[in-house]
Amino acid sequence: MVRIGIGFLGCGNIGCGVYRLLTTYGDQIEKNEGVSFEIRRILVRSPGKKRSWDIPAQLLTDQVQDVLCDPQIDVVMEFMGGEEPASSYMTAALKNGKTVVTANKMALASHWQQIVAAAREYGAGLYYEASVCGAIPIIRAMNDSLQANRITSVMGIINGTTNYILSRMSREGAAYADVLADAQRLGLAEPDPTADVEGYDAAYKLSILSTLAFHRHVPVECVYREGITGVTPLDVQCGKEFGLTLKLLAVAKEEDGRIQARVHPTFVPDSHPLAGVNDAFNAVYVNGHACGEMMFYGRGAGDMPTASALVSDLIKAARTKRHLLPAVSDEPCEMADDWSCVHFVRLLAKDEPGVLSLVSGKLAAHGVSIASMVQKGEPDENGYVQMIFLTHRASERAVRSALAELDGEKVSTCSVIRVEGK
Amino acid sequence: MVRIGIGFLGCGNIGCGVYRLLTTYGDQIEKNEGVSFEIRRILVRSPGKKRSWDIPAQLLTDQVQDVLCDPQIDVVMEFMGGEEPASSYMTAALKNGKTVVTANKMALASHWQQIVAAAREYGAGLYYEASVCGAIPIIRAMNDSLQANRITSVMGIINGTTNYILSRMSREGAAYADVLADAQRLGLAEPDPTADVEGYDAAYKLSILSTLAFHRHVPVECVYREGITGVTPLDVQCGKEFGLTLKLLAVAKEEDGRIQARVHPTFVPDSHPLAGVNDAFNAVYVNGHACGEMMFYGRGAGDMPTASALVSDLIKAARTKRHLLPAVSDEPCEMADDWSCVHFVRLLAKDEPGVLSLVSGKLAAHGVSIASMVQKGEPDENGYVQMIFLTHRASERAVRSALAELDGEKVSTCSVIRVEGK
Repeated sequence: MVRIGIGFLGCGNIGCGVYRLLTTYGDQIEKNEGVSFEIRRILVRSPGKKRSWDIPAQLLTDQVQDVLCDPQIDVVMEFMGGEEPASSYMTAALKNGKTVVTANKMALASHWQQIVAAAREYGAGLYYEASVCGAIPIIRAMNDSLQANRITSVMGIINGTTNYILSRMSREGAAYADVLADAQRLGLAEPDPTADVEGYDAAYKLSILSTLAFHRHVPVECVYREGITGVTPLDVQCGKEFGLTLKLLAVAKEEDGRIQARVHPTFVPDSHPLAGVNDAFNAVYVNGHACGEMMFYGRGAGDMPTASALVSDLIKAARTKRHLLPAVSDEPCEMADDWSCVHFVRLLAKDEPGVLSLVSGKLAAHGVSIASMVQKGEPDENGYVQMIFLTHRASERAVRSALAELDGEKVSTCSVIRVEGK
Repeated sequence: MVRIGIGFLGCGNIGCGVYRLLTTYGDQIEKNEGVSFEIRRILVRSPGKKRSWDIPAQLLTDQVQDVLCDPQIDVVMEFMGGEEPASSYMTAALKNGKTVVTANKMALASHWQQIVAAAREYGAGLYYEASVCGAIPIIRAMNDSLQANRITSVMGIINGTTNYILSRMSREGAAYADVLADAQRLGLAEPDPTADVEGYDAAYKLSILSTLAFHRHVPVECVYREGITGVTPLDVQCGKEFGLTLKLLAVAKEEDGRIQARVHPTFVPDSHPLAGVNDAFNAVYVNGHACGEMMFYGRGAGDMPTASALVSDLIKAARTKRHLLPAVSDEPCEMADDWSCVHFVRLLAKDEPGVLSLVSGKLAAHGVSIASMVQKGEPDENGYVQMIFLTHRASERAVRSALAELDGEKVSTCSVIRVEGK
């Protein structure tokens, strides 16, 4: 029997969830896994505050050193969230030789090198399954199941709030602002929704996922990021007519030795497994050389799903003799500054002879060809119609250059949305 | 650096796949994982035969003892398939203290207790990720990610051949026999398709999955099994009209301390994540107390996906100091002999007043109520029409008893198909 002393940094809803799982399933885990856990100290801001689960008062402390310096604490579990002081506390715990288990994508992605270096130098364990997509064991899959693969791409719906908003916009034809307001009322979006709707949350997670997938550190600053605030019901609707579903996708690919990591509204074919991932669910779709296509689907957030992942990490840490850190090369990672994909383009175009030929000619001059096109509705009072087309796979830079040159009296670009999985 | 000597039992396509991955990714694995593998001996029937990958002749042997008794072999990888001699060889290897890595669901499910007991008694490792759903890390998920959960249900599309057949029947309205013949031509179904189409293959896998999910041994003989040979295009079509997709589902649930484990044609709502799993893909949908709903999707068969899982097990085995065997209670498992679900029922009924009331009255007398009903088409030359309905959730025994009592001159039962995920 391995006995492990645990300290908590923070004890909000997720911390209470972990406390609850460890007290409820402690015997089962002890019997099945041969490890027993003792929670020794819990750092909280206000030890007197009422909590959702009954925690003995003598465990609570407001002094971080009680957790970081207690020699009877083997594993520090961090649930504070945010960049600081979480990053400094985790680094300090690792330097004291303590294993760290965390759900904190922001701290991990922003201070990856500092935190991993501390773990490496002091031989401590670092576990972070819960930092990406809650209960979904995607970190485990990358690190422990796909080692004999060259991973070629990772595409994920890794933010539940934006997926909820886009699912409802798609189902109901509703406008972004209305669904966002609803999501805020339901507690599915924060009062300040920026981190979710502008793609920051997804970018943190993609930085971690792509670093593991490609064995090179992909800093969060190198993740291209575009949120969903500009998505219109008209684009969602037009996509449907082409058999496409709109998602906020996190995409990472390695092509010709360069890495693309990008978060942006993306159309996927209705038949693609990611298209059916709705509401607050998350899913990560991975393509590997030997394993082929895989998808991992589940609840990407929530106290108990996250706690489930944290406890599985805790067990893994307890059962590991020699902690394995992510195998990430020290060479700087070369990021792509352009990428190829199919593009969905919506233009407002003068309804007169020669305009289609103007558009297709300009695109062709940039090496972009049109795969399918529709003209939507009757001309407006100024004689303009909606012209919507899908390109064949083409360089994004080429598409944007062609459209910039076209923009003028006869043609104006309304939307350019990338299409993946086609 | 940990150095591991490996012996192969068998070297068909999967064995060659493992050989290929280990030779191609050996350096990457050594660098990332700190383990190096040396293949020392390979048991084959005909050492002189030409293989798909160039394997040095001195590794080949036709003497099983060269693998089982070589003290320099730490891990025995079994790719022979079939019950015997694979089970005996694996047991012998474990008794020699060697870790076994296998893809053999049939041997494992049929000789579970013997094989696990040998591993336990001799302190040897037993790894079988590849035995269920190829590359999909579902065994890992059960054993290493969901330990702090009470798993309530597991539902899977775990046989690619039948999923290919049903997907095409659904898409094209084609008949079973025609699609089967096509699948045989394409190499997607065996010349004797019994193991797949009668659900034996899925039953082996479900025995393993449900044993792990519920921590009690669910023998393969206790898995209720019904194949797809009786599925008609008419049922597939009628299901569509109710928003249902037909799959060969493996279902395991624990209700009131009893376990249900069953493989049978099953309708799932079109909106259910399993409904979108098409062609030869596999997926396992798990519901846990803390983690909520999850789904794992990917290639359930094929040389390289299976080899990918085998190599991940090999690395796990090499990095484990104390092997953990599945925590399965010794108490005999109590199997349910009835279960509740929604039922899809298709009857041929005399088109005359009073017949609907006869049907609904008889069902009501058995506690079964009808949720929705349609009558299809015009009466045939004998005055019978197709009557199709969905019940509310009801005991299967009650539904069958009511239908047995109804069967007669006015009503005859054509199909009863269970519905899950509603």
